[in-house]
Order: sequence, then structure tokens, then C-alpha cells
Amino acid sequence: MDTAALYERGLELRRKLFGADAVQRRMDALGEFGAPLQHVINAYVYGDVWSRPGLPNKSRSLAMLGITAAINRPQEFRVHVRGAIANGCTQDEVREVLLLVAMYCGVPASIEAHRIALEVFQEQAAAGG
Amino acid sequence: MDTAALYERGLELRRKLFGADAVQRRMDALGEFGAPLQHVINAYVYGDVWSRPGLPNKSRSLAMLGITAAINRPQEFRVHVRGAIANGCTQDEVREVLLLVAMYCGVPASIEAHRIALEVFQEQAAAGG
Amino acid sequence: MDTAALYERGLELRRKLFGADAVQRRMDALGEFGAPLQHVINAYVYGDVWSRPGLPNKSRSLAMLGITAAINRPQEFRVHVRGAIANGCTQDEVREVLLLVAMYCGVPASIEAHRIALEVFQEQAAAGG
Amino acid sequence: MDTAALYERGLELRRKLFGADAVQRRMDALGEFGAPLQHVINAYVYGDVWSRPGLPNKSRSLAMLGITAAINRPQEFRVHVRGAIANGCTQDEVREVLLLVAMYCGVPASIEAHRIALEVFQEQAAAGG
Amino acid sequence: MDTAALYERGLELRRKLFGADAVQRRMDALGEFGAPLQHVINAYVYGDVWSRPGLPNKSRSLAMLGITAAINRPQEFRVHVRGAIANGCTQDEVREVLLLVAMYCGVPASIEAHRIALEVFQEQAAAGG
Amino acid sequence: MDTAALYERGLELRRKLFGADAVQRRMDALGEFGAPLQHVINAYVYGDVWSRPGLPNKSRSLAMLGITAAINRPQEFRVHVRGAIANGCTQDEVREVLLLVAMYCGVPASIEAHRIALEVFQEQAAAGG
Repeated sequence: MDTAALYERGLELRRKLFGADAVQRRMDALGEFGAPLQHVINAYVYGDVWSRPGLPNKSRSLAMLGITAAINRPQEFRVHVRGAIANGCTQDEVREVLLLVAMYCGVPASIEAHRIALEVFQEQAAAGG
Repeated sequence: MDTAALYERGLELRRKLFGADAVQRRMDALGEFGAPLQHVINAYVYGDVWSRPGLPNKSRSLAMLGITAAINRPQEFRVHVRGAIANGCTQDEVREVLLLVAMYCGVPASIEAHRIALEVFQEQAAAGG
Repeated sequence: MDTAALYERGLELRRKLFGADAVQRRMDALGEFGAPLQHVINAYVYGDVWSRPGLPNKSRSLAMLGITAAINRPQEFRVHVRGAIANGCTQDEVREVLLLVAMYCGVPASIEAHRIALEVFQEQAAAGG
Repeated sequence: MDTAALYERGLELRRKLFGADAVQRRMDALGEFGAPLQHVINAYVYGDVWSRPGLPNKSRSLAMLGITAAINRPQEFRVHVRGAIANGCTQDEVREVLLLVAMYCGVPASIEAHRIALEVFQEQAAAGG
Repeated sequence: MDTAALYERGLELRRKLFGADAVQRRMDALGEFGAPLQHVINAYVYGDVWSRPGLPNKSRSLAMLGITAAINRPQEFRVHVRGAIANGCTQDEVREVLLLVAMYCGVPASIEAHRIALEVFQEQAAAGG
Repeated sequence: MDTAALYERGLELRRKLFGADAVQRRMDALGEFGAPLQHVINAYVYGDVWSRPGLPNKSRSLAMLGITAAINRPQEFRVHVRGAIANGCTQDEVREVLLLVAMYCGVPASIEAHRIALEVFQEQAAAGG
């Protein structure tokens, strides 16, 4: 498959999961300097890995909550809470993953993840989401 | 709820997920010294968190694969590949989580997780599992 | 032991270590969504593990400074500097642990821990603490 | 660019850096299950990122020693010591990076990296390398 | 060698790499409490390790970008982007290391590192740097 | 202070904590290649940081158990269990720190630390220690 086609497919999926405006802001923020990284993200991460059959994206999102909380990357965790909601995860389902995080990564990781998840829920409620 | 009841409920769930023999071996290995930690694992991790409604255990297992690969704890990852199979995850589903791990935790984390998952699959095939 | 009793015992200890107001703010911040995690923290972390005999809480606090600096969770490190002071640790004792952190976790972990510890010392001095 | 061409270019580079036999063994070890991950490694990691102009591969190798020591992945560190030698790094240059690792990641990370690097040097000396 | 001489040599090198004002601010920020840590940094990190022959400081800087991105210490990464520029690294060279970070530490580590690197580039352009 | 004097003081302390034979084996294992790292360990880690007044070495050891378990370096954790015993820590005190590790770093970190601590206890019992 051509990487330009992967890029387009991935960018479309990112826009669907996180909102076209938010994705554009993230891409603009890194400008020319970040273009090769955006290629990695659009073509390889979303155009290839996230676009594979074999697992519903809701399940991918639940795994992503655990992964991004575990690696201590709060900005990325925030992005994937939004993606989880877009993929149909409920607040209760998000919480169950974060309780696993408390047990397997320690309570500090889970406290921070709870705080961010709650901010996303409130921001979406405020937006009528 | 009494913590003794939580302990029993959790121990029963562990046995169902990982096999009674394997759990007994793991508990015996740490002996008297490890008794308080086994209490944490049986009562709090499995008797409370894993026993909550709100998420099917198959989804918990998929998240656990991502979490234990991300935190770089290969022994624990191995345990949770077995749990994932007991909870009905297919090899394809396991692999999809490990491809997310490659993208979000880096390829070395995913290479090691692939190697361990494959060993578990082969061991279960050899056991007629 | 009943988990409700563990919860009460742990909540009381948290209030003693970190101040009743600070604990209430932290619990309120996560609301209903965070109630199961607060149960983990109050009943299991403080009601069980921190309430065990076998180690003076001052020694627990010194270990906690090392642990929370090592896991790169600055908010939690800040909480445990306050707890260390409440448990009778001096500024010199805090610093000795942070110099071990420099050697075993690398200087960047120690620089950040120094900065936060100093903020807590100054905040407590300003409060007449 | 077509991903099949990226894959071929990356596989060729991997063989050059790590030896055709070693790469084949690593690919065989993960079999069918690991084919999508090998695609990520060959096409994206080596066919794209490592094949970019803009930095000599010797400099990439020196950075890789620091990265793989820092992320606590000893198998991958070992692979990249071999790659560093293939890219022209001397033992002294390898050591200088590992002394930075001692200072910025802590001495335990550097002790383990020293041990592995020394094993690779001895293995290559034994092979007349 | 006397540690006071190491300290002076290291402090001089830090000033050359990061600017005398920035180093002074960092040292003042930690005051008396931080004096032993500053001794570690000046005498051991810069006076010894960074002052060794055997690797050009430009190569050290490229490795440091990978190391500080990998260990998830954004403040320290920012410092070492400045050091990399002072040691003659170009923006393209910085980027190549950050693309390795994406592949070996995961894309979230690289996104954050890109964002910080870009801020440093813009701050230096604004200062006529 | 002269770094050669720091080195001698640190080497003497290492021998006292871990046994002269064990230290010699560790130093021999890394040979000429590891001499600069051994200088860091002997002069800076043990000759300076561990030799400072301000904290009893028993307290340092308890903090070290938490730190080395948290950073996921099992070989180093093993060394510091031996050091903790030499510094007068009891098995119960070691266990209390490892239960904190379970809560703040997650149960997998604590399971591995329990396993290693128990091996050290048994090895010392076998040696009549």
C-alpha cells in the first residue's frame, strides 16, 4: 500500500475519533518541524495499526487508557479519554480500567488519570456532548 | 464487606483465571513472608477490583495486556496472557493490543511481549489447551 | 476485618498525616466518579498497609520520598513531603534521601524533587508551620 | 512510497547493521504471529526512520545506546551495541554514553549496560570481529 | 583530583553550554538546601563525566536528547535542547533523534519532545540566537 | 577533598555493606572498561552520598529498597537487600517497605521484590548469616 494512502486513511480516522479541529490544532502546533512525526502518527499509527481489523476500536480505546496511564503521559491519556468516549466507552467502563491501573501501576498513576478523565467528562458535558 | 470474604472471592477468581495449581505455586513461593502481599492480591486486586461489575473480564484482560507490557514486567505479562486466553481472548485480539504497545510504548516493549505471548500459546497448544 | 472499618481507620490516618482540609479537597475533587478509588486509598493503602505495625511511620515516609521521586509522580511526591514532615522528618533527612535519588534514579529526578520539597518547606514556613 | 519497498529497504539495512543471520533468527522467532510487528520494524523503523538523511548512522547508534539503556530493555540494548559497532563506534565512545546514562538515569541502569556491552565486545573478539 | 577543582571546571562548562545567567538561576532556585546536589551536578556530572575526552560534546548532546526524552523529564529535556544547540546540533539533527524516540519509546514521548524543542527554537530565534 | 580519598572511603564502605568478595567480583566483572563507572560508584555514590552524616545508614537502606524496587532494577534491588540486612534491617521492616511498593508502584513490582528478598534471606540463612 502506498504511504500517502495510509496517511489519508489515518488522518480521516484521527479526525473521526478526536474531532477535525483538535487534530488540525495538534498538527499545526508542530509545523514543518513536526511533519515527519505527523507522518508516523497518521500513516503508521492510525492508517495502519488502528485501521486493522481484528479488534473493535472500543476495545482498542480501553487498552489505550491503560497504556497511556501506565506510561505516565498525561497529555496523551487525555486525548485517549476523548477517543474512548467517541468509540462508545461509558464513564463506568473508563473507571474500571483506571482501577486496574491503581492496582498494577500504583495509586498515584490512577489518581492523576481519574483527575484528567473527570476534566474530559465535564468539558464534554459543558459542550453538550 | 469483610476482608476474609473478599479474600475468598478473589482467590476463587484467580484460580478460575490462572488455574488452581499455578496460583497455589505462586502463593507457596512467597510463603509466610509473602502472606500480607497475597492478602492484597486476593482480597483487594481480585476480590474487589476484578470482581466489580461494569466491565466484562475479557475487556479487563485486553487492558491488562497493554498495562503489563507498558510497565515492563514480563512475568506479570505472561500471567495475564494466560488470563486473557481464559477470558476468551483470541490470539488475534492479543496481537492487536501488542501492536498498540509498539506504537505507544516503543517497539522493544512489543517485541518482548510478542515473544512471551507466543511462548504461552505454544505451551497451551502442547497441553492441548 | 470489615472494609468499612478499614476505611474509617485509613481516613483518620490520612487526615492526621496530610491535614483534614487537604484530604477533603482531594476526595471532593474526584467526586462520585472517584469514590471507588478513594475506597482503595482509604481502606487498603492507609487503613491496611500504612496502619500495620512493624515500621515507624517516619521510616515509611523516608521510603515514600524515594518511591514517589523514583516513579516520576511529582504531585504525589509533594503530598509525601508534607507527610514526612508530619511524621517528624527533618529537612536534612529529606535531603539525604533525595541525594540517593540523584545517584540511583539520575540527577533530573532529584532536581525536580528538590524543587518541590523546597516549595513545601517554604509554604509551611509561611503558614508558621 | 509503497510500504513493500520501505519493507525491503529496511530489511536490507537491518541485515547490514546486525547481520543477516541474526535478523533472520529474530524474525523467525516470532513467526506468523509476529509478521505485522516485523512489518512495523522493517518498513517504518528501518525503512523510514533509520533510512532518513540528516544524521549519520553512527550518531543514531550513539543516541540509541542512551535510549535503550534508559528504557530498561536489555535485549534491545544488546542489539544496539552490535549496531553501534557496525556503524563504527569505538568501545570508548560506547562507554562515554554509558557514563551519561549513569548520571541521568542512575548507576543501576549503567551497571547493567556496561555488563551487556562488555559481553558483546568479548563475543565479537571471540568471533574475530 | 580535588573535588573543588572538579566543581569549578564543571560549573564553567555548564555556563558555556547553557548560559551563565540560566545556570545561576537554576542554582539559586535550590539555595542552601540544594547545595549538595549542585555539587553533584557541577563536580561529578559536568566536571567529571562531561569533561572527559573520548566523545565530542555534540555527540554527547545528541545522546542526551534521546536519554532525557526517554526518561520522561521534560524540564531536563528542554535544558539539553539548549545545550545541543550550543554544541552545534542543527534542528534537523535534533529531529532525527526525536524520530528514533518515537519508534523506541513510543509516539507520546516524541510528541512532547517535539513540542519542547520547537519552543526552544522559537525562543532562540526571538532572542536573535 | 581529593577524589582518590573519596574513592578509598567509598570502597571501604561498600565492602562493609556488601562483603569484600562480592564487591571485588562486581568490580572485576566490568574490568578496564568499567573503571570509570567504578570510580563513580566508589567515589561519588559511596564515598560522598552514602558517607554523609544526616541519616543513619539503616534509614538509607530502607529508602533504597523502595527506590530500587520502583525503578525496576532487580539486580540492584538484590544488592540492597543484602545491604539492608548488613545495616540492621529486619525481615519485617523489609516487608513493610515492599507493601508500600505494592500500593504506590503496583503489585507486580512488589511480587518481584518479595521473590528476590526471600532468596536473599534463604541464601543468608544457608550461609549461617
